[in-house]
Amino acid sequence: MTTLVFGHKSPDTDSTGSPLIWAWYLTEVKGAPAEAVLLGEPNTEAAFVLDRWDLPKPRIIDAVEAGQPVVIVDTNNPAELPDAINDADIQAIIDHHKLVGGLETKGPIDIRIEPLACTATIMHKMIGADLAQAPTNIKGAMLSCILSDTLEFRSPTTTQEDRAIAEALANDLEIDIPAYAAEMFAAKSDVSSFSDAELLRMDSKTYEVGGKTFRVSVLETTSPATVLSRKDSLMETMPKVATEDGADQVLLFVIDILNEEATLLVPNDLVKSVAEKSFSTVAGEGDLLVLPGVVSRKKQIIPNLAV
Amino acid sequence: MTTLVFGHKSPDTDSTGSPLIWAWYLTEVKGAPAEAVLLGEPNTEAAFVLDRWDLPKPRIIDAVEAGQPVVIVDTNNPAELPDAINDADIQAIIDHHKLVGGLETKGPIDIRIEPLACTATIMHKMIGADLAQAPTNIKGAMLSCILSDTLEFRSPTTTQEDRAIAEALANDLEIDIPAYAAEMFAAKSDVSSFSDAELLRMDSKTYEVGGKTFRVSVLETTSPATVLSRKDSLMETMPKVATEDGADQVLLFVIDILNEEATLLVPNDLVKSVAEKSFSTVAGEGDLLVLPGVVSRKKQIIPNLAV
Repeated sequence: MTTLVFGHKSPDTDSTGSPLIWAWYLTEVKGAPAEAVLLGEPNTEAAFVLDRWDLPKPRIIDAVEAGQPVVIVDTNNPAELPDAINDADIQAIIDHHKLVGGLETKGPIDIRIEPLACTATIMHKMIGADLAQAPTNIKGAMLSCILSDTLEFRSPTTTQEDRAIAEALANDLEIDIPAYAAEMFAAKSDVSSFSDAELLRMDSKTYEVGGKTFRVSVLETTSPATVLSRKDSLMETMPKVATEDGADQVLLFVIDILNEEATLLVPNDLVKSVAEKSFSTVAGEGDLLVLPGVVSRKKQIIPNLAV
Repeated sequence: MTTLVFGHKSPDTDSTGSPLIWAWYLTEVKGAPAEAVLLGEPNTEAAFVLDRWDLPKPRIIDAVEAGQPVVIVDTNNPAELPDAINDADIQAIIDHHKLVGGLETKGPIDIRIEPLACTATIMHKMIGADLAQAPTNIKGAMLSCILSDTLEFRSPTTTQEDRAIAEALANDLEIDIPAYAAEMFAAKSDVSSFSDAELLRMDSKTYEVGGKTFRVSVLETTSPATVLSRKDSLMETMPKVATEDGADQVLLFVIDILNEEATLLVPNDLVKSVAEKSFSTVAGEGDLLVLPGVVSRKKQIIPNLAV
C-alpha cells in the first residue's frame, strides 16, 4: 500500500514541502511508493512555493484509515493530526518540535527529532549523498522550507546547520536568498483573501497554561500594518473562535519579519495580564503591545507564557 | 551540571552498557560532562559484562531532581523511569522500542529511535568515526549489548546492521563471538541467588490487553530446566507479585536461548485462555506450554497477546 506522508493541519511551507521531499526520497531512492498529502489548504507562502518550483499540489485529506501506512513530518502532536492517527500504521516520524506525548506506535519505528529550525534540514541530513539524485524542485522545496522556518535566518531557532544547508542549496540552485525570501514573505503577507477567523486559525497552536487554554496564533508578515489595520474586527472575532475551538482565549502575535518584533493584540485584561507576566520588555499601550526581538513562538513565546 | 545517562529500571545488559557508552561519548568526544547511572541493580549478565571488561559499575539512583539534565536510553516509557521524569531536563532519547507516549519535553530535543535490536547499535551509528577514539571497554560494552539483545543473532529483532556492527567489533576486539556469548548467557542463566518474586520481576514489562493488566516477564536462559524446576513456587508467588504491582496476572515466559523456544507457565484458566488465543502453535500440557520459535517479547509475544 502506498505510504502517505503528511505534516500538520493548517500546512505552512515546511508542512507542505517536507512531505514532498520525503515522498520523493521514499519512492525514488528507497523504492517504497509514497505520496505527499496535506491536512488542509496550504497557506499563501506554501502555495507560492508550489507554484514557483512547479511542484504538484498534494491532495488534501481529512482522515486516515486504520492500518494506513503513514509517515508524520513536522509535528508529533496528535492534536495537529487526523483524529484516529494512532490507528494508522505509523512508520516514521521526522520532526523538530518538542515531544508532546500522545502518539503511540504498535512496534518500534524510525523516529528522528532534532532541535533544528526546520524538518527539511533533518531530511537533508538523512538523505545525505542521495540528494544528488533529487530534481531541482525537490531541492527548491528544501531551500524554501528552511528560509520559511528560519525567517531567512532571523529566527533564534536557526542553527548553523540550517543556515549552511540553505546556503549550499541556494548556491546549487543559483538562487539569490534575499530576493527569493522576499518573494516568499510577500506571498505570506498577502492575507487579503482571508476572513478574520481564518487569520486567527492560520498558524495557531493550542497550549494549556495556568489552567487556561490558549490558542497561540502567529502571523508572520513583512507588512504588519496590513494585518493591524484589521485589529478591531480581529479582536471582535476572537471570542467566537475561542469558543468554537474550546479555548479560553486567542493570543494573536503579528510577527514583523523585517523589523524582528511581535505585536500582541490585547482585547481584554486577561491578555494584558498574560503579556505583563510573560514578557519583560513590552512597549506600546492600549490594545497593541510591541515585543521587541520576539519572532519565534517556539523559542520566545511559549517558554515564557505565564498567566 | 553533569548530565545523567540512564536506561530502564531492572537494568539488563543494554540498559547498563548503553549509558556507559553514551556517557563516554558525551564526556570524551563532545566535551559535555556526563555520568552513566543505573535505576536498579544490573542483572547477572550485565554484572558479568561490567566485570569482564573492567567497566566501573555505575551508581544506582532512584529519583531525579527537577531540572536535572538527563539522557534517556533504551526506553521511552515513563513507567520504566523515575516518577518525576517529565520534570527533569530531558536532553535526548535514544531507543529502539515502540513509542509509548507519556514523555514530554519543554523544548525540541534530540530523539533517535530506530527499529534495531539494540540501543548500542544506534549509538554505534551516531558515534560514527569517533568510535576510533573509544577505549577497549567501551567497544566491549557495545558488543555485549548487541549479543545480549539479539541473543547472539537468534532473536527475530536482529537486523543486518546489528549483526554487521557486532561482527566488526568482535573482529576489532579479537573476541570469539560464540564463546563469549556462551559466557554471557551462562551468567544470565545463573539465577540461583534470586527469590521467586525477584525472578518474576527481573525482566518484566506491563501491558494492558483486553481490559486486563499483565506483567509480561521473560527469563532468557541457556538452562531452562533450572528455572522450570522452580515452577511450583514461581506459580504460587505470581498472585502476590501481581497484586503488589497492580497487575491482574503475571505471564512468565522462560526463553530457551539455544533451542529457540519459550515455555509459558500456566497457573490458571486465564493464562491458558491467553495462550490459546495468542499463539497458534503450542505444545505441552498441564501447567507448562511450549511455544516453538518464540524468543522475542517485542516481536513475538506482545504483538500477539490476546485475551
